[in-house]
Parts: sequence; C-alpha cells; structure tokens
Amino acid sequence: MDSPDRPALAFRRATEADHARVVGVIADWWGLPGTESLWRLLPRLFFQHFANTSTIVDGADGALAGFLIGFRSQSAPEVAYIHFVGVRPDLRRSGLARTLYERFFEEMRASGCRRVDAITGPGNRRSQEFHAAMGFTATGDTTIDGVRAWRDYDGPGEHRVAFSRPL
Amino acid sequence: MDSPDRPALAFRRATEADHARVVGVIADWWGLPGTESLWRLLPRLFFQHFANTSTIVDGADGALAGFLIGFRSQSAPEVAYIHFVGVRPDLRRSGLARTLYERFFEEMRASGCRRVDAITGPGNRRSQEFHAAMGFTATGDTTIDGVRAWRDYDGPGEHRVAFSRPL
Repeated sequence: MDSPDRPALAFRRATEADHARVVGVIADWWGLPGTESLWRLLPRLFFQHFANTSTIVDGADGALAGFLIGFRSQSAPEVAYIHFVGVRPDLRRSGLARTLYERFFEEMRASGCRRVDAITGPGNRRSQEFHAAMGFTATGDTTIDGVRAWRDYDGPGEHRVAFSRPL
Repeated sequence: MDSPDRPALAFRRATEADHARVVGVIADWWGLPGTESLWRLLPRLFFQHFANTSTIVDGADGALAGFLIGFRSQSAPEVAYIHFVGVRPDLRRSGLARTLYERFFEEMRASGCRRVDAITGPGNRRSQEFHAAMGFTATGDTTIDGVRAWRDYDGPGEHRVAFSRPL
C-alpha cells in the first residue's frame, strides 16, 4: 500500500472507541446537501457488535483515512451487508474504497457468503457510480431524482437505491 | 396467552414486510416529545438481517400488538442486544413486554449468551422503570434530565442510559 501516491495506511478492526471519531467526520466527508445528519445511521451498536467485520484505516498522520462498517446477515447467512463506507476526501481516487470492499468481499466469501448487498440515497451519484464499477447491480421500484430507487425503503421519504453483487 | 385480560396474541419471527408496519406505529406508540423521528433508528436492515432473533406479535384483530428487534452480538458473542421494543398502548401493563423480553432471554441463553444489553433515552422513564423491574442495571457517566446517562453515547446530543443484565 506504500507508494508516493498513497502514504502508508494501516488497516485494523473497528473498536467501540472509533465510534465518535467516525461520526465526527461523516458530514465533512460526504459534503452533500441533506447529509448533515447522516451520522445518525451509524449508532454505537455497529462498533460494539460488528467490530470484527468492520475496518478502520488510519493514515500515516494518525488521522482517520477511511472505514467500512459491515457484517454478515444473521437471518440470511449467505448474505453480507455493507452498511457504511467512507474515505477521506483527499484520499479519493486512490483505490482505498475499492481495497476496503475487496477485503470485505474476501472475508465474507471465506465465511460462506455468496452475495453482498449495500444501499445508497438516490442523490448520491458518486456512490452509485462506485458500486456499478465494483460489479453491483442496482435495483428500485420507481424513478427518484432520475435514478431507479425503492420508494420509502427505510421509512417515509427515505428512498434508497439497493445494490447486490455475487461473491 | 389466551385470557379475558389479554385476547389471543400470535408470536412469530419478524419478516422484511413488517418493517413499514413497525415504522408506522412508533411515533404513535411512544407519544413522547422528540420521538417523532425515533423510527429512523429502525432501518430495514434489522428486518432483513436479524429477523431470526426478532419477534412480531399480531393481535387477534390482525393489528400489530408488539415487537422486539434484537440480535446476538457478532464481535462479542456472549452478549445479546435488544435494539427496539414496542407494545401497543392499550396492551401496556398486560405483561407483553415482559413476555417478549423473557422469550428473547431464553433464546439468547440457549445460543450461549451470558449478558443482555439495551439502551434508552434519558427522558424515557417508562423504559427505565421497566428495565429496572426486569433486573437490568443502568449505567451512565453523567446526570442528564435527572438520570445517570452516557453523554453523546450515540453521537452529538444523543445521550443514552445503558442497561445490562446477566443471562
């Protein structure tokens, strides 16, 4: 991972102590309208109970460089789910999100998962393009903001594009 | 469960189709200030991935009577976590919440869990009294609204009382 383009990054498991740190960067890293309260989708429970399938990336400077919060489904154990992924804006296009996904795919495949799911908001074009490039198929039941999405997927007004990819 | 005081209730596992139904009752069932958007803590993923440890209770009239959304921790497998529990207001004090908890305790104990955790808001006295009656110990690092709670537990301004109980 060490290269002139990408200073040394350290990948490790998430801990509960990372919760506040991750929550603290989300609005800044996303920087899209309406994402000021996006951190609410990431309560502490993910860092308590899915730490062993979630990854934190520390930069050489000690600052948070990226994270992936994901888990294996308990009621559909062939399915893995990526809940939240973030990369520090100055590290975008460095391949870090791809590396986080590929590491997660590998772990989940080794656990016996055959599919990985994720969701995003209809307005998050960057996420939609990334998931398409990573081999995910997007689904929806209607068109919202010009993209196929599931209306009220996560509750009233909470439309989502759903992604699936075989493992 | 059939008695003059409590019409027949049917306990079953949660399904993804229950998500919209549960989300739709939360503001009405809670009815506390600031709980209008409490349903946002219950995204669809809980009904997709933790359906096999979550319970829906249907009333004799077909209407939702209660629910418990919980799971076994993946990174701390000796810990079970109750994320969200609701009982229809006209069924309160009938023992339904207690029954939901006791069924969950039994299942989690059989899975190998030794402890069950839950959280609530500092303002939710009803929940605090219920957890005390169910044998939970409450913790916090400060006093908020007159109760011990953890400041910013789930993010900025999201203080929580944490409960723990041996299984």
